[in-house]
Amino acid sequence: MKPELSTADQAALTSGSDFWRTTAVESADLPAITVTDGPHGVRMQADGGDLLAGVPATCFPPAVASASTWDPELLRRMGEALGDECRAMDVAVLLGPGVNLKRSPLGGRNFEYFSEDPILTGVLATEWVLGLQSKGVGASLKHFAVNSQETDRMRVSADLDERTLREMYLRAFHRVVTRAQPWTVMCAYNKVNGTYASEHHWLLTEVLRDEWGFEGLVVSDWGAVVDRVAAVRAGLDLTMPGPDAAGDRALVDAVAAGTLDGGVLGRAAQRVHHLVLKAGTREPGSYDAAAHHALAREIAGRAIVLLKNDGDLLPLGGQSLAVLGEFARTPRYQGGGSSQITPTRLDDALTEITNATSATVRFAAGYSADGDTGDEALLTEAAEAAAASDVALVFVGSVHETEGADRDSLDLPAAQLALIERVSAANPRTVVVLSNGAVLLTSPWEARVPAIVEGWLLGQAGGSALADVLFGRVNPSGRLAETIPVALADHPSFLDFPGEHGHVRYGEGVHVGYRGFDARGQAVSYPFGFGLSYTTFAYGTAMATASEAGVEIRVPVTNTGDRDGREVVQVYVGLPGSAVHRAPRELKAFANVPIAAGATAEVTLHVERADLAYWDTRLNRWVVEDGEYLIEVGASSRDIRATVTQRVTGDDARVPLTAESSVGEWFADPRGAELLGEVFASAAGSATAALTADPSMLMMLGSLPLSRMAMFPGSPFTAAEVEKLVLAAND
Amino acid sequence: MKPELSTADQAALTSGSDFWRTTAVESADLPAITVTDGPHGVRMQADGGDLLAGVPATCFPPAVASASTWDPELLRRMGEALGDECRAMDVAVLLGPGVNLKRSPLGGRNFEYFSEDPILTGVLATEWVLGLQSKGVGASLKHFAVNSQETDRMRVSADLDERTLREMYLRAFHRVVTRAQPWTVMCAYNKVNGTYASEHHWLLTEVLRDEWGFEGLVVSDWGAVVDRVAAVRAGLDLTMPGPDAAGDRALVDAVAAGTLDGGVLGRAAQRVHHLVLKAGTREPGSYDAAAHHALAREIAGRAIVLLKNDGDLLPLGGQSLAVLGEFARTPRYQGGGSSQITPTRLDDALTEITNATSATVRFAAGYSADGDTGDEALLTEAAEAAAASDVALVFVGSVHETEGADRDSLDLPAAQLALIERVSAANPRTVVVLSNGAVLLTSPWEARVPAIVEGWLLGQAGGSALADVLFGRVNPSGRLAETIPVALADHPSFLDFPGEHGHVRYGEGVHVGYRGFDARGQAVSYPFGFGLSYTTFAYGTAMATASEAGVEIRVPVTNTGDRDGREVVQVYVGLPGSAVHRAPRELKAFANVPIAAGATAEVTLHVERADLAYWDTRLNRWVVEDGEYLIEVGASSRDIRATVTQRVTGDDARVPLTAESSVGEWFADPRGAELLGEVFASAAGSATAALTADPSMLMMLGSLPLSRMAMFPGSPFTAAEVEKLVLAAND
Repeated sequence: MKPELSTADQAALTSGSDFWRTTAVESADLPAITVTDGPHGVRMQADGGDLLAGVPATCFPPAVASASTWDPELLRRMGEALGDECRAMDVAVLLGPGVNLKRSPLGGRNFEYFSEDPILTGVLATEWVLGLQSKGVGASLKHFAVNSQETDRMRVSADLDERTLREMYLRAFHRVVTRAQPWTVMCAYNKVNGTYASEHHWLLTEVLRDEWGFEGLVVSDWGAVVDRVAAVRAGLDLTMPGPDAAGDRALVDAVAAGTLDGGVLGRAAQRVHHLVLKAGTREPGSYDAAAHHALAREIAGRAIVLLKNDGDLLPLGGQSLAVLGEFARTPRYQGGGSSQITPTRLDDALTEITNATSATVRFAAGYSADGDTGDEALLTEAAEAAAASDVALVFVGSVHETEGADRDSLDLPAAQLALIERVSAANPRTVVVLSNGAVLLTSPWEARVPAIVEGWLLGQAGGSALADVLFGRVNPSGRLAETIPVALADHPSFLDFPGEHGHVRYGEGVHVGYRGFDARGQAVSYPFGFGLSYTTFAYGTAMATASEAGVEIRVPVTNTGDRDGREVVQVYVGLPGSAVHRAPRELKAFANVPIAAGATAEVTLHVERADLAYWDTRLNRWVVEDGEYLIEVGASSRDIRATVTQRVTGDDARVPLTAESSVGEWFADPRGAELLGEVFASAAGSATAALTADPSMLMMLGSLPLSRMAMFPGSPFTAAEVEKLVLAAND
Repeated sequence: MKPELSTADQAALTSGSDFWRTTAVESADLPAITVTDGPHGVRMQADGGDLLAGVPATCFPPAVASASTWDPELLRRMGEALGDECRAMDVAVLLGPGVNLKRSPLGGRNFEYFSEDPILTGVLATEWVLGLQSKGVGASLKHFAVNSQETDRMRVSADLDERTLREMYLRAFHRVVTRAQPWTVMCAYNKVNGTYASEHHWLLTEVLRDEWGFEGLVVSDWGAVVDRVAAVRAGLDLTMPGPDAAGDRALVDAVAAGTLDGGVLGRAAQRVHHLVLKAGTREPGSYDAAAHHALAREIAGRAIVLLKNDGDLLPLGGQSLAVLGEFARTPRYQGGGSSQITPTRLDDALTEITNATSATVRFAAGYSADGDTGDEALLTEAAEAAAASDVALVFVGSVHETEGADRDSLDLPAAQLALIERVSAANPRTVVVLSNGAVLLTSPWEARVPAIVEGWLLGQAGGSALADVLFGRVNPSGRLAETIPVALADHPSFLDFPGEHGHVRYGEGVHVGYRGFDARGQAVSYPFGFGLSYTTFAYGTAMATASEAGVEIRVPVTNTGDRDGREVVQVYVGLPGSAVHRAPRELKAFANVPIAAGATAEVTLHVERADLAYWDTRLNRWVVEDGEYLIEVGASSRDIRATVTQRVTGDDARVPLTAESSVGEWFADPRGAELLGEVFASAAGSATAALTADPSMLMMLGSLPLSRMAMFPGSPFTAAEVEKLVLAAND
C-alpha cells in the first residue's frame, strides 16, 4: 500500500461504496471491485432493479443437493463454472460457500449449507473454493461462525462450549481455510458466546489468522457490523454494504484518540487494497450457458437420493404414467433470499418425463400453485389419473424455505399429504418425488408407497435430472448428507432450537445430527449417508494400516448387479473408552467410486491423523488419544459392511499435576503415583491409614484435590508439602 | 457480638475447631457447638471411632423413599423426630436436607435427594426443616447449589444458563429458605459456571441473602473451601472442618492489607456467634427409640411404590411363599458415605414376612452376599423353592450407591437378572421387590413378572414396611418422584452427564426428568408421579378459579374400590404458545388424600401464582405470562384424569424498545408499531417501499434491528432518527 494513504482514505477503504462495490481511492489509483451473492449461482443485481432481481445466470443445485453427490470433483467443476460466470459479469468475489453446520433440520437457510457433518462439508467446500479461485475469482467462506439458524439471526448468541465449537462448528472453516485459502471470509450476523461475530477478536484474529494462517480479508455479512471501531479492532477488514461515512469518521476519530491502533486500521485497509489488486489480475471471460446447464443437470442427477424402491419399481420403462402435483410443472428448484438466481433456462419434470417416454403421460396439478392448498376436485382428478395409469409419480415438497426465517415443522403441507394418500390408494405403484431444501418427514406416509425419490432443490436443470434418474439414464448415487428423523422431537437439537430472548444453547454439544441419533440409539427414517442404487454392491474385508499421516483403509467393493453404478464408500471412526464423550461413529473419509457391472474396485481411503483428534480444553489444543480405534466401513452410517480396529499411538498429552489435581489423578500418573504412594505408605497407622482402609472412604478420596485433603484433620501432608510434591511430580 | 472481639478471634470463629465443632472463644464466653451429618438420621461420630462409625440412631428412610410418600406431613414428623434425637445427642445443627435436583438417575447421591421436580422437593424439604427446627435444632440446607453429580464433585463446573438455574436448580432452595428459614445453608463443593460455590458472591450473597432474605449462616461443605479470603468475601461464614490456622491467618492479613473488608469478616463471625447463641437456648432432650422405629416404619410403608400388580396378585393372602434373594435377609436400606447411620434396630423382610403368615415360607439366597455374583447352585435352589410355592418374592436391587461416585449403569447386576429369569420361569406368580437408591431399569425383565414393588432404600424399618405392603396391612400410596426410563440413553441428561475435564454442560436446560421425556414425547417404563393402590380412584370434573394468589383447583375424587386408600392428586400446568420453551406439563401442586372405600373427597389444590412464572433473562426477573394455562389433574404425569384451562392475567413485562430491537419487535409493540408505521408510510415510493413489497424481503426485515437497518442504503431513517424513535417509544 502506498504510504501516503491518509487515515481517512484507509477508513473509507474498509467500507463499501454501495451495496455491492468496494470504495475506489483515486489518490491511490485504486478502483472499486464488485462482489455479489452466491453460492450456487452468480446473483448480479440488474441495473435499477430491486435487490432480489438478478441478471440471468446458471442456477446450479443449491448446497443441499450438491452435497448429496458426496463428490468433491463435481464441486470443483461447479466452482470453476461459477468462476467463469463471475468473469463474464465482472464479479471479483462470489459470496460463498456457506459451510455452517446443519444443526437443526428447521434451519431456514439449510438449503445453502452442505451437511450435518463437518468433514463432508469441509471436503466439498474446499473443492468448490479451489475451483472458483482457479479462475481468478475470490470466494467468501461464510458465515463465520455458528450461524446455524435464522431466528433472531442478527442478534442471537450461539452459546456453546469450546470443544463443540472447535470440533463441529469451526471444523469445516478450518479445513477450507488451510487447504484452499479463500480470498475472503465473511463474518456472521450472530453472536458467539455473547460477542458479535463481527467484533470477535478470538474468532477473527486469534483463531482465523494466528492459528489457521488465513491470509485473506474478512468481510462482514451485509449489515453485520454494529460498531465499526470494535469490528476493526477485532480483525474485520471490510464492512458491507456502504457507504458508511459515520463509521469511517468514527474510525478516524478512534485512531486520533488512540483508542484504535492505527496499525490495525492500516492492515485492514491494506487487505482491501490487496484484494482489489488481486482481483485486477483477472482476465474478463465468458461462458457457454448450454454447457453450464448441462453441468447443472449432471450435478443434479448425481444429487438425487433414491430412498426407497420396493420391487424395483424404478427405473421406469414403457409404463403409462400419471404425473401429479403442481411441482412437476412448476418446479421448486431454489430457496428464497440472497441466493435467489434468475436462471438462464428452467427445466420442468413434466416436460422432461413426457419427452422421455412414448407411453401415455397424464398430468394433474393435485394441489394449488402455492403448494399449500387443495380441494376435492384437484384430488379426484389426480386419483383418477393415477388409477388410469400404470405408475403414479407424485411431486410434493416444501413450500416456505428462505433465508431470514426458520421452518416450524418438517411436515408436508396438508394438501400434499392428502394427495399422497389419495393417489397411493388409487394406484399402489406410486412414486413420491420430493422437492425440499432440508429434510421432510417421510414417516407419516412412507409405508403407503413403494418408491421415494429425494429430489431436494436441484437448480435450473432439476426437471431433466429427475427424468434422468426416473428413467435410469442416470443410476442414482446420491447419499443423504443429513439424517431424516422419524419425528422432529427426536432430533438432538429439538429441546433448544432456536432459543429464546437472544440466546440459543447448543445443548447437544458435539452430538449434532447422526452423532446424536447414534449416541442415543434412536431409530431414524433414513440415516446419514444412505442412498439406494439400481445396482447392488458387496464389500470385502477391510484392511487398515497406520502411519504418521493417519490410517489408510483398503476395501474391495464389487458391483454385484447388472448395471454400472457408483458407490459412496464411507469410513466412520469411533474410540470406545475414549477419555471424552464421543459419538459412536464419526465420518472421517469417503470415496465416490464408479464401478462397472460385475467389476470390483479396490478402494483406498485415508483417515487423516488430525481428524482423529479431539479438542482438549485442559491443554487448549488438539489431542490424538492413544487407543484401539474402531473403523467401520459402510454404505451408510447405519449400514456398516466391514469393521477393523487399528491401534493408534497417541500424542504426548500429559496434563501437569497440580495441587488441585485429585488423589485419583495423582495415582493415574506414573510419577505422581510413585510420589504420593510414598507419602501414603509413610502415613501407615495414622488416621489416613484408617480412612483409606474403608472402601467407601477411598472412593470419596479419589476425587479430592491434594490441596483440599491437606486441610483435613489427619491429612498425611500439609499444604506446604503438597507444593513440594507438585514440583517433584513435574520435574 | 461483643465489640471487643479481635480480628483474630473473628477469623478463628469462622472456621471449625475440629471435624464437627465450631471454635469456642473464651474471651467472649462463647462455647463450641456440634454439627453432624444427616439427613435421614443423626450420624454422631463415636468417640475415637473412625469417621464413618456413628453412635446408634434411628435410620429413617433416605430422601429417595421419604419423597415417594408425597406427604408433607410425614416429612414434618420425620423432622421433629430427628430434632429430638439431635437434642438427645447434643447436636445443634443437623446437616440436611439435601435438595439438589436429580438431574441424572446415575447420580451417586440421588438417594439423599428428593426428586427430579423442584416443587415436590421444595414442599417436602420445607416441612422437614420446619419439623426439625421446631425442636430448637438447626437445619443445613444443602448443597447450594447445582451439586447434582458426584463425578469430580470437588472441582467440576456445572455450566448452565440462568433460566435453568433459577427455575430448576435453585427453585427448591428458594422455597425452603423463604418458608422455613433454615439456620444454615451449606455451600456445594462444585463450581457453578466456573466459580466455586464457596466463592460465589452472586449465589451466596446476591441471591441467597439480598433477593431471598436468608437470615442464617452459610457453612461450607466439608473441604469445599479453596481460598478462605475469597470465600468470606463471597459470603461464606463458616469453613468446615477445622482447625485452619493458616486460613484464619490469611483472613487477618487480608483485613490488615485492606483486601478484605473487615466488616465482611465481622458479619461472618457475628453469624457464627449468633448461631452458637441460638443453639444454646435448646433444651437437652431424649427420644423413644421404639416410637421412632415405628415412625420410620410408617414412612417406609408410605414410600413403597407399587409399580405393577397384574391380576391383583398382591396383597398376599394365605399362599405359601418363596422368599428369594439375599437382600430379603440382609437388607439394603441406606446408601454409602456421610449419611450412613448405625441403626438402633434393623428389620429384615424375611423375618417380617415369616412372622406375617402362617403358610410355608421357603428362603433361598439366590445370589451371593455382595449382591453381584451368583452360581448355578444358588439359582437352582431358588427356582426349586419358587416352583414349590404358591407365590415367589424375588428381592433384588442395586449394589453400589454411595456418595463420592456416580453409577455407570441403571441395570441390575447380572446375577440378579439371572435370578429373576429363573424364578419367573419356575413360577409365573412372581413378585419382584426392588431395593435401590435411585431408579433401576425394569424394561429388561418387567414383562416376565406380574408384580413389581419399588422398595427404594427404606431405612431401618424397611423390612417390616415391605411386609406391611405385601400383606395389605398398608395400602400402597407411594408415587414415583423420578421417572423410570426405558433405557439410560433415553434420559434427557444422557448426552452430557457427568461431563469431562472439569465441566459438565446442563444441555437439556429446563427439561430435567419428566419435562424432557414429555417434551420429546418419549415412552417411559413408569412415569413421574406413578404408583398403584390396592383400590381404585375415579376423578370428577375439575374446576379452576383464578385469584391474585394464583389458581385454585377443585376436583372430586372417589375411592371406587373396597379398601380404604390414599390418592396423590397431582396438578400439572402448561402454557401452550408460551414465549419461552416450556415443558408440556410441570407439577405445580399436589394433595395426599386418604379416602375411605366408597367415599368421595372434594380435593382442593392451590397453584401459587409465583409458581407459574418463568425467569426472564431480558428483564432479570420472574414473569407470569398472560395466557390460557392448561391445567391437568392426574394420578401421574401421564395419567391425566381431568383438564381445565384458566386464563391468567400476566405481569406487566414490557421490554423497552431500543435501537437494537428488531423491526418485528417494534411492530409487535403498540406504541412502536404506531411510530414505525408512520415512518414506513412516509417512505412510500422509496427503495424501502420496493423492498417491503417483496414477501421474502419482508421476512428478512423482521429480524433486522433498527440500528442496522439505518446503515442500509435506502433506509427510511438515519441512525439519529432511530434515537428519536427510541425516545418516543419509551416516553
